[in-house]
Amino acid sequence: MNPTERMLRACRGEPVDRPPVWLMRQAGRYLPEYRRAREGVPFLEMCRRVDKAVEVSLQPLHLLEVEAVILFSDIFVPVTGLGVAVDFEPGPLVRDPIRSLEGVAALRTPDPRESVPYVMEILRVLRRELEGKSVPLLGFAGAPFTLAAYLVEGRGSKDFAILKRMMYRAPEVLRALLTRLTEMTVAYLNAQIEAGAQVVQLFDTWAGLLSPADYAAWVQPCHREIASKVERARAPLILYVGNGAHVLDAMLASGADVLSLDWRVDMAAAAERAGARASVQGNLDPCALAAPVERIAQLVREIAAAAAPARGHVLNLGHGVLPETPVAGVRAFVQAAKALPVRPPA
Amino acid sequence: MNPTERMLRACRGEPVDRPPVWLMRQAGRYLPEYRRAREGVPFLEMCRRVDKAVEVSLQPLHLLEVEAVILFSDIFVPVTGLGVAVDFEPGPLVRDPIRSLEGVAALRTPDPRESVPYVMEILRVLRRELEGKSVPLLGFAGAPFTLAAYLVEGRGSKDFAILKRMMYRAPEVLRALLTRLTEMTVAYLNAQIEAGAQVVQLFDTWAGLLSPADYAAWVQPCHREIASKVERARAPLILYVGNGAHVLDAMLASGADVLSLDWRVDMAAAAERAGARASVQGNLDPCALAAPVERIAQLVREIAAAAAPARGHVLNLGHGVLPETPVAGVRAFVQAAKALPVRPPA
Repeated sequence: MNPTERMLRACRGEPVDRPPVWLMRQAGRYLPEYRRAREGVPFLEMCRRVDKAVEVSLQPLHLLEVEAVILFSDIFVPVTGLGVAVDFEPGPLVRDPIRSLEGVAALRTPDPRESVPYVMEILRVLRRELEGKSVPLLGFAGAPFTLAAYLVEGRGSKDFAILKRMMYRAPEVLRALLTRLTEMTVAYLNAQIEAGAQVVQLFDTWAGLLSPADYAAWVQPCHREIASKVERARAPLILYVGNGAHVLDAMLASGADVLSLDWRVDMAAAAERAGARASVQGNLDPCALAAPVERIAQLVREIAAAAAPARGHVLNLGHGVLPETPVAGVRAFVQAAKALPVRPPA
Repeated sequence: MNPTERMLRACRGEPVDRPPVWLMRQAGRYLPEYRRAREGVPFLEMCRRVDKAVEVSLQPLHLLEVEAVILFSDIFVPVTGLGVAVDFEPGPLVRDPIRSLEGVAALRTPDPRESVPYVMEILRVLRRELEGKSVPLLGFAGAPFTLAAYLVEGRGSKDFAILKRMMYRAPEVLRALLTRLTEMTVAYLNAQIEAGAQVVQLFDTWAGLLSPADYAAWVQPCHREIASKVERARAPLILYVGNGAHVLDAMLASGADVLSLDWRVDMAAAAERAGARASVQGNLDPCALAAPVERIAQLVREIAAAAAPARGHVLNLGHGVLPETPVAGVRAFVQAAKALPVRPPA
């Protein structure tokens, strides 16, 4: 079974020999080779330069032998296409936060193939590169709520209180903004699939800030809309909700093919609930990659065993790799996944 | 039923007419009167000066008619007694983080009545003040894991990665530190009870960073030890775990009298699980205090109804009041609680 088959089958809940393995933010600052490639290149330029983005996207494949490659980019890249001025410091910084219906109405709605053509070009180059190796290519997008969080707040925040007060004081503004961002995300992910992405992941980093009731009212409709309009028959959809242990049932009802679980989710209980309805991805605490190699291997075996009740499992972390992570820990994680006992064919 | 009876009975799961109401961080920057009292006074001095601390502790009672008064202090106050140099900027800043067994061994273990006598004096003055009004007095302490988080990391952090790596790389250091902090916390809470606190709350703000397995290994033993050694017969113990939706079962098994729930916890499900084993406290999202008054009243009614299956309920937020909160929202919350339908005596 080659890596592309293994990944696609795991996402769709078809039998595989063992779970495929990759890591969120696997192309990142913990890698000396990544830091060298980035030297002197501003972050957004890294996302725009096809040569650079392709180079760092492939580093984890060459250096760590992960079993999937994900587009190097940032969730805010398509937002620049809406006509919003964004800086990075290092998180997104929106010069004029959007806090009115006029602000929402002023957003452009370009075709992502025209507004961010370099993303599609990076995907095409990567796909050609990976085709011969039978390694799957992943695309991704930020989810509407998380993008709105930055657009309304203006920057990252501990509690995103401005955004959350908008839910109570100007719900029509937030609703309009989420509608526009949902449309943009559907178009963006479908353009990525057309350009060669074989799986796409939706990152809702901040949706876990909400109570279950607010999540159901504000986040869930966006996810459902995206899951129904993204061409999932061509590319399965993975849904990640940061800090989302309390909204697992809503994640299951989103229609996504795979639920990417935060490390705080009890994998055994979640896999049981997912059952035949969805595959699961995750969910080692990224800090555990600092553990001794043998401990990491043990944790990988435990997660794989806990995930068994779900129809499929993709081994990953419960959050992106942290900058201070030892490369040896990431390598141990990948190797432990590959050393998992092979399941006999069904 | 007077406020003291209502609060103590709700905490112990005895019948009450309606849930009592107070708010975490009710004495805080959202109040203009608080900001005036603090003008020119450094934060730690506010905690040390009996007149100032008493003044701001009582403000929410006089201005908002809450039904409990909590000691004005900071979770880091008793830590200064260990011989650790702490600044505030505004979160705690530890000049020499503790990252070795030597660092743990160097900590002093003073009697809190001698190292932070002003805390006990503030409680004694408040208790005299409240006795005639039959308003209950609450004491509090930071939980060992949360204190250790700052002591190891040196300051607040998004992911406390240094602390969490210590769990994997130097578990003996973290274990020794938690043991010392647990002893300190037991002595500190019992001294508060002796000085007049009628209920005590343990704040584990950061324990929700851990996976269920790590929580069980590192946090749960501290809570159990504290619950078994604090004089709960004299003062019920409330346990708050920030972002703790995924560790509710462990919270229930801690032995605490009341579980103070983060706003992300589904109150109906939690109250069902708590049942006759524990009372619940909470859990409105503090951002919802920005909503129109009628909406706040509606949310209060929903929370009270959802909490009904638990043996007792204390109305509160799911986190402390945020600085930007409108005072009118806090007032609406308190009034809505007091307007809840009175239950007939059992």
